[in-house]
Amino acid sequence: MMLWTAPDPAPNPRRVSLFLRAKGLTLPTTLLSLMKREHKAADVLDRNPRGQVPFLVLDDGTVIAESVSICRYLDELHPNPPLFGETPLERAETDMWIRRVETALGVPVAMFWQNSHPLTAALVQQVPEFGAISRDRALDALRWFDGQLKGRRFLVGDRFTMADIILLTTVDFAAWIGIGIGIEADGGALDSWRQRVAEHLAL
Amino acid sequence: MMLWTAPDPAPNPRRVSLFLRAKGLTLPTTLLSLMKREHKAADVLDRNPRGQVPFLVLDDGTVIAESVSICRYLDELHPNPPLFGETPLERAETDMWIRRVETALGVPVAMFWQNSHPLTAALVQQVPEFGAISRDRALDALRWFDGQLKGRRFLVGDRFTMADIILLTTVDFAAWIGIGIGIEADGGALDSWRQRVAEHLAL
Repeated sequence: MMLWTAPDPAPNPRRVSLFLRAKGLTLPTTLLSLMKREHKAADVLDRNPRGQVPFLVLDDGTVIAESVSICRYLDELHPNPPLFGETPLERAETDMWIRRVETALGVPVAMFWQNSHPLTAALVQQVPEFGAISRDRALDALRWFDGQLKGRRFLVGDRFTMADIILLTTVDFAAWIGIGIGIEADGGALDSWRQRVAEHLAL
Repeated sequence: MMLWTAPDPAPNPRRVSLFLRAKGLTLPTTLLSLMKREHKAADVLDRNPRGQVPFLVLDDGTVIAESVSICRYLDELHPNPPLFGETPLERAETDMWIRRVETALGVPVAMFWQNSHPLTAALVQQVPEFGAISRDRALDALRWFDGQLKGRRFLVGDRFTMADIILLTTVDFAAWIGIGIGIEADGGALDSWRQRVAEHLAL
């Protein structure tokens, strides 16, 4: 198989690369430049009609796109350590926390990025007023996760899971584009959690 | 177990109710009124701190929130008919299509709903300019799914899956709030697909 992806800090490529790191796996990789719009080239669109990376091409040509779907597939092929859970309940809880990160934090972070950031200004029609609202929502979400992580080792409890990788990549990307209020770096629950995740992944 | 949910046409409650219909399952249910904001009441927030429905309370009090996570859990407990796939590849493909619907269509539909619809005007700070952009993106996504469905029985191929339920609920909710360009009702691929899904679910 071949992983088509892009260098960090793009959050979706980083999700897969941290997943592979946690698994101790390496995959043959083709790197594309997002800034050069290589992910919108015809040969890429033939493989993934959404025009996004990462995507995984299996040996028979089958394509699996969407970072979490790629990792879910690889987790079943290489079950140790389990990053999506080992029982129906564990898998549901992991999935729930992945979705909470994506909808509560990921969406407003993406909306700020698309509507207010200079790096996207030439690529999309920006509405800075909505970017500002989205920034406030992202900050509220950071506070919510800080609260949820109090007394908890990882997002799902004692298990390190894919949900931690999703939160880490989202929090780090948010910080990189200027969304942060200090709670992720002040010794609070989110900060301690981030240190545990970094330690777990040997970052 | 007890399912806490809300009546249709709210799209997330409808996802779970169509999933149960496809499975031939019934669950004890507590219905909340979203318009009366009952999902933000203290006893609901104690169970699901995101303040959203649906969520599933297991007999030991464990809560599974997020509609897709709930269905994923129930699919494992009641595997026939399989709605998430029977092999790692089938599960990855189903997951990929669920995510494509959610990100390409679901997000712009939600953004239009939040920023431009009279029913949400009193609840959130609206930016109509972004609502209009989101409406155009949702229409583009409808056209994209129409193209992807050409020559295909269901989203993932020949298998009816959770991804079809997610697309159906999103397309129908979009139409209900005024997003439609006719391609979903003109005998095109999206329209034919919708008829197959309605037939499959005996709607």
